[in-house]
Amino acid sequence: LTLSELRGEKQTVFPEREMAGMRLVGVAVVGCGYWGPNLIRNFCDCSSTCVKAVFDQDTAAMVRIGRAYPTVRLAKRFAEILEDPEIEAVAVATPVCTHVALTEAALKAGKHVLVEKPMADNVAGGGRLVSLAKERSLVLMVDHVYMYNAAVQRIKTIVDSGSLGSIYYIDSVRINLGIFQDDVNVVWDLAPHDLSIVDYLLGHPPRTVSATGTSHTVSNQEDVAYLSLDFGEGLIATFHVNWLSPVKVRQMIIGGSKKSLVYNDLSPSEPIKVYDRGIEFDSSPESRHNALISYRMGDIWSPQVPRDEPLQNVVRSFAACIREGGDPLSNGAVGLRVVRILEAAQHSIKAQGSRITL
Amino acid sequence: LTLSELRGEKQTVFPEREMAGMRLVGVAVVGCGYWGPNLIRNFCDCSSTCVKAVFDQDTAAMVRIGRAYPTVRLAKRFAEILEDPEIEAVAVATPVCTHVALTEAALKAGKHVLVEKPMADNVAGGGRLVSLAKERSLVLMVDHVYMYNAAVQRIKTIVDSGSLGSIYYIDSVRINLGIFQDDVNVVWDLAPHDLSIVDYLLGHPPRTVSATGTSHTVSNQEDVAYLSLDFGEGLIATFHVNWLSPVKVRQMIIGGSKKSLVYNDLSPSEPIKVYDRGIEFDSSPESRHNALISYRMGDIWSPQVPRDEPLQNVVRSFAACIREGGDPLSNGAVGLRVVRILEAAQHSIKAQGSRITL
Amino acid sequence: LTLSELRGEKQTVFPEREMAGMRLVGVAVVGCGYWGPNLIRNFCDCSSTCVKAVFDQDTAAMVRIGRAYPTVRLAKRFAEILEDPEIEAVAVATPVCTHVALTEAALKAGKHVLVEKPMADNVAGGGRLVSLAKERSLVLMVDHVYMYNAAVQRIKTIVDSGSLGSIYYIDSVRINLGIFQDDVNVVWDLAPHDLSIVDYLLGHPPRTVSATGTSHTVSNQEDVAYLSLDFGEGLIATFHVNWLSPVKVRQMIIGGSKKSLVYNDLSPSEPIKVYDRGIEFDSSPESRHNALISYRMGDIWSPQVPRDEPLQNVVRSFAACIREGGDPLSNGAVGLRVVRILEAAQHSIKAQGSRITL
Amino acid sequence: LTLSELRGEKQTVFPEREMAGMRLVGVAVVGCGYWGPNLIRNFCDCSSTCVKAVFDQDTAAMVRIGRAYPTVRLAKRFAEILEDPEIEAVAVATPVCTHVALTEAALKAGKHVLVEKPMADNVAGGGRLVSLAKERSLVLMVDHVYMYNAAVQRIKTIVDSGSLGSIYYIDSVRINLGIFQDDVNVVWDLAPHDLSIVDYLLGHPPRTVSATGTSHTVSNQEDVAYLSLDFGEGLIATFHVNWLSPVKVRQMIIGGSKKSLVYNDLSPSEPIKVYDRGIEFDSSPESRHNALISYRMGDIWSPQVPRDEPLQNVVRSFAACIREGGDPLSNGAVGLRVVRILEAAQHSIKAQGSRITL
Repeated sequence: LTLSELRGEKQTVFPEREMAGMRLVGVAVVGCGYWGPNLIRNFCDCSSTCVKAVFDQDTAAMVRIGRAYPTVRLAKRFAEILEDPEIEAVAVATPVCTHVALTEAALKAGKHVLVEKPMADNVAGGGRLVSLAKERSLVLMVDHVYMYNAAVQRIKTIVDSGSLGSIYYIDSVRINLGIFQDDVNVVWDLAPHDLSIVDYLLGHPPRTVSATGTSHTVSNQEDVAYLSLDFGEGLIATFHVNWLSPVKVRQMIIGGSKKSLVYNDLSPSEPIKVYDRGIEFDSSPESRHNALISYRMGDIWSPQVPRDEPLQNVVRSFAACIREGGDPLSNGAVGLRVVRILEAAQHSIKAQGSRITL
Repeated sequence: LTLSELRGEKQTVFPEREMAGMRLVGVAVVGCGYWGPNLIRNFCDCSSTCVKAVFDQDTAAMVRIGRAYPTVRLAKRFAEILEDPEIEAVAVATPVCTHVALTEAALKAGKHVLVEKPMADNVAGGGRLVSLAKERSLVLMVDHVYMYNAAVQRIKTIVDSGSLGSIYYIDSVRINLGIFQDDVNVVWDLAPHDLSIVDYLLGHPPRTVSATGTSHTVSNQEDVAYLSLDFGEGLIATFHVNWLSPVKVRQMIIGGSKKSLVYNDLSPSEPIKVYDRGIEFDSSPESRHNALISYRMGDIWSPQVPRDEPLQNVVRSFAACIREGGDPLSNGAVGLRVVRILEAAQHSIKAQGSRITL
Repeated sequence: LTLSELRGEKQTVFPEREMAGMRLVGVAVVGCGYWGPNLIRNFCDCSSTCVKAVFDQDTAAMVRIGRAYPTVRLAKRFAEILEDPEIEAVAVATPVCTHVALTEAALKAGKHVLVEKPMADNVAGGGRLVSLAKERSLVLMVDHVYMYNAAVQRIKTIVDSGSLGSIYYIDSVRINLGIFQDDVNVVWDLAPHDLSIVDYLLGHPPRTVSATGTSHTVSNQEDVAYLSLDFGEGLIATFHVNWLSPVKVRQMIIGGSKKSLVYNDLSPSEPIKVYDRGIEFDSSPESRHNALISYRMGDIWSPQVPRDEPLQNVVRSFAACIREGGDPLSNGAVGLRVVRILEAAQHSIKAQGSRITL
Repeated sequence: LTLSELRGEKQTVFPEREMAGMRLVGVAVVGCGYWGPNLIRNFCDCSSTCVKAVFDQDTAAMVRIGRAYPTVRLAKRFAEILEDPEIEAVAVATPVCTHVALTEAALKAGKHVLVEKPMADNVAGGGRLVSLAKERSLVLMVDHVYMYNAAVQRIKTIVDSGSLGSIYYIDSVRINLGIFQDDVNVVWDLAPHDLSIVDYLLGHPPRTVSATGTSHTVSNQEDVAYLSLDFGEGLIATFHVNWLSPVKVRQMIIGGSKKSLVYNDLSPSEPIKVYDRGIEFDSSPESRHNALISYRMGDIWSPQVPRDEPLQNVVRSFAACIREGGDPLSNGAVGLRVVRILEAAQHSIKAQGSRITL
């Protein structure tokens, strides 16, 4: 066996890929900072996509990509990407304040777009993106990666099965000693994850949003914040996001009338626990005044969750929607609903926590 | 050694107690439900107090006490306690809505009072109690038992030492599947613990209070609630109290500019952890726009905390203040500050989370 | 309602107890040190037993009991207990080296005996006790309290159901910074708990025992030790007992061919976890040499366990056996099997870890 | 800026590397299964090494490497590597049974060798490797990667500082549901990690070794085993290794006379905890018989440990020893001491746990 034969064999290992080469979705990744390299790696690993080019204003960041992926073209200008007919899709992983402009330009150039969360830094801009994608029949997908997480998928199934009963409240905590962002506060940085999960689980937007937050740096960007969403009928969802916590917590409690669920994203062995526990009460008129409420303890069940990489599911889903014409789970409408909440939360913080009706 | 000699020796084991019998503070405990028995046990264990009588409208509850403590008198009426000259002090452990009336009556009868938390169900009533105690030079102590907890005492020392730097935020979570109270909601039931701790640690009241909460039972008492206190200068304290949580959490994070502290009341081995971690930034004018903020990881230190019973410290302190004329750590003024926050939180919940200025 | 009426009512609250007074099992507790008071409290709480007398050579310990339980007689001599016809049963909670002598004397005096674990400090003595109890038709029960623990009862049910498959191994760890005993080493002090659990779960004794241990004090009593029991057919059970551990661990892993179970006695919320995990392999002859072994991950299930006090179950069971003539779960035969293993382990330690065949 | 300029800049980013190119240690990696790819990645990342070639009998495994690292040559035969003068060093990451033969061949060909743990499957073979390396003045390093782990390095510093006092015992647990190896049992697979750590910390070999273990598969390879090492003077080290555990544990307790340390390799936030706890006793002759032993609780301290990749430290150290002529921390002598214990443990298991003197 010679080296060239070995190399030849390489051709035959994944014949379907090579043969189907013309069908691969040609992708360009814009933004090679923190998240961009993860996108590039996943697009390269995905059997239906191919990274044609990358672009970043920071040359050094682009060069690092070029070294690791010698076949990927390093674009000189963003326009170069828009003009390239081999590039069907653009992934936007740049700072939040540039999402609308870059995505808009890409859509106008006829490219499908996968844009990082949050989709936009304002509702008006986000709305334009949704309209534009619809007009041009292009896929607009937001990288709400948690919606493609196996644990969240499992939770969705459990919630939809009705086994939790009515949802009473959701309490979400996402805190750690974090990387301060230049252009956004902790709400815009961390809350999109949890807001997209809650949007996915509940399937409808909140009625009102209120939020409080404080900043402890010269940037005046909030680094500790709390959001409260009222979904009506007694259901509230509350979010603690924090860049100053000494401990890392990523936990969501979903309290239900029959059972409750705790999602701990940091537990490799037991990310989901379902507690067969709750309160029981006699709601007959005569018990109205003596409140016969008791609580019930029960078993705990932790379903096994496969350990796949959620981002791989994202890029596969993106490619499938492009090829097969579907609408992604985290489409522009989802992204826009999240931006609407973020913007309302921002207004509420400035207005001393006043409740904003959506 | 004969049995009678043994019994004789019993007299001599604690001679100081027997000899000093006339000096023991004679106490009556009113309310023999959930907490009353703990008060009775601790007053009995304390070498400077003596339980003379108990009273409860629920005869069965009182009888249980009589069986366990045959020497304790079971009063027929509350007035019997007020009229008894051997009773110098009354401990009030009845439902919250009765605290003001019973405490007022006891003070008027010249008794020192230890009243359960919260001291009152309204600010006006609480204020009357403070005035009355002052006029009559009687000890008015609120059983904010956490202020006498060894871990909280240790945290107070750490905060006062300045080693945490400036306090940036406090995040408190006290949630579990709880015993629903008839007469108060989860805020009045659980938050007094954490509010008294924060009052103790910070030494000054918040400027504003806002709160949200929902009820899921026919009682319409909130069972899930969040409070947010603004202390000014960027310091916020937030409290999650919840009777519907499948998991029990009792945790307080104190984020500081130099170090941060986590108090986990449920960890027998490491109730306090001090994290030598935080953010560092260059606050010079030129860095204003490029936000050179980095974070620093460091050692974790968990100080050993003695395991004494906080309630024993409460009753000892109560007796010492009566005998030696001092003012208890958790005096009426503390209790009233806590009630003021609870009342404001209640108003805020009713007013859709509006911020209430104290 | 007058006080005397209240006191009168006290008589009627538990009429069946008072009326059935002559049927109460009269008990004496010998040994009022660490565990004795727990026995006394539980015999007092039990509706079918009555503590008539206690005895301890340490007068101060006995006097403490007398003060807390004024109706309990403080015996001057152990013989006084043996001679008292009102005393039907004796609980022996003295140092291990006295168990055989005291239990033997009590049995010879016609008393039923509940003896602390381990039942005896040698097999010969333990064997005499078993014979004596049988001859005289007296109840001989060993206080292997874990066998009456709700979690262990639940584990027994799970093991017996066959859902774990074949038991492959048991790994038990019981370590903490412990109270050094005067008269026994860490093996005799801590291992009886785990040995009684394993005896209960497996239902048959091991074939061989080997052990290693070391001492780090002038007493030359081992303070760190490991026991290994071979039950045949590939099933081994291993025990780590340790008085010098900085951390407290009380955990038992039961590895099965189908599922495995972890018992964590220190977890109030999840003492039992059943893991639907294991290895799978093709045992056909042709796979013998290429070992097609894979592992399978699955759900985790934590059954709810009621929180009763195991010792209350012990005293109730003891009383029931006396009244109804049954044989206790932890009878003398169980106690003797445990002593046989302890004695063999002691020999093995002295013989440099040699395997001792039982 | 053109693409070619960008590519040109690539040359200048790491000029020292390019200029010092002739000085890079040329490495070949033999074995591209589980661990080999990690070695290749780390040799590629290391600024003083360069992967010239790889070899594996499994062509598919080699091809995967070739695709990820297009500049790495895929050797047709092992001999090709031995004959290549550009290859100065060989990393052996093949099944254990081949370590001696491949390492011997490489050393005889004048190559420096980094061999996976365990270095050899028998003491005699391991001894030949040590002699051969010495004769030829070649670096022979064993990939005991834990010795290069930042946490273990920190523990070594703490132990050497004397702050723990005398070491009383070491208890190591490394268990999980594991990948069954074809050619070795769980002792040879997992124990080398912990044995190398203990060898590193204590600096001297044990006097005796005993072990027990069982197999539950047709392979008859032990999948659950316990090793006990006696270092004299009361110091024992015990190791639980297990491929059948439903839970993953990687913990080592180091009990000392002054303080104790717990190393939890699975805790990202607190891998090391030092407990200022222990026993205190009066060793004066008169207290000999009444054993005045008490225990002392104290603070817990968890030092911050940097999160670097240990294997990068391994390859750097290997390169430095080759270039600068040093002896690696995990040299052949260390590797041989570990093999000696493994071989003795194997004998002990076959001899029913008999103690083997080294």
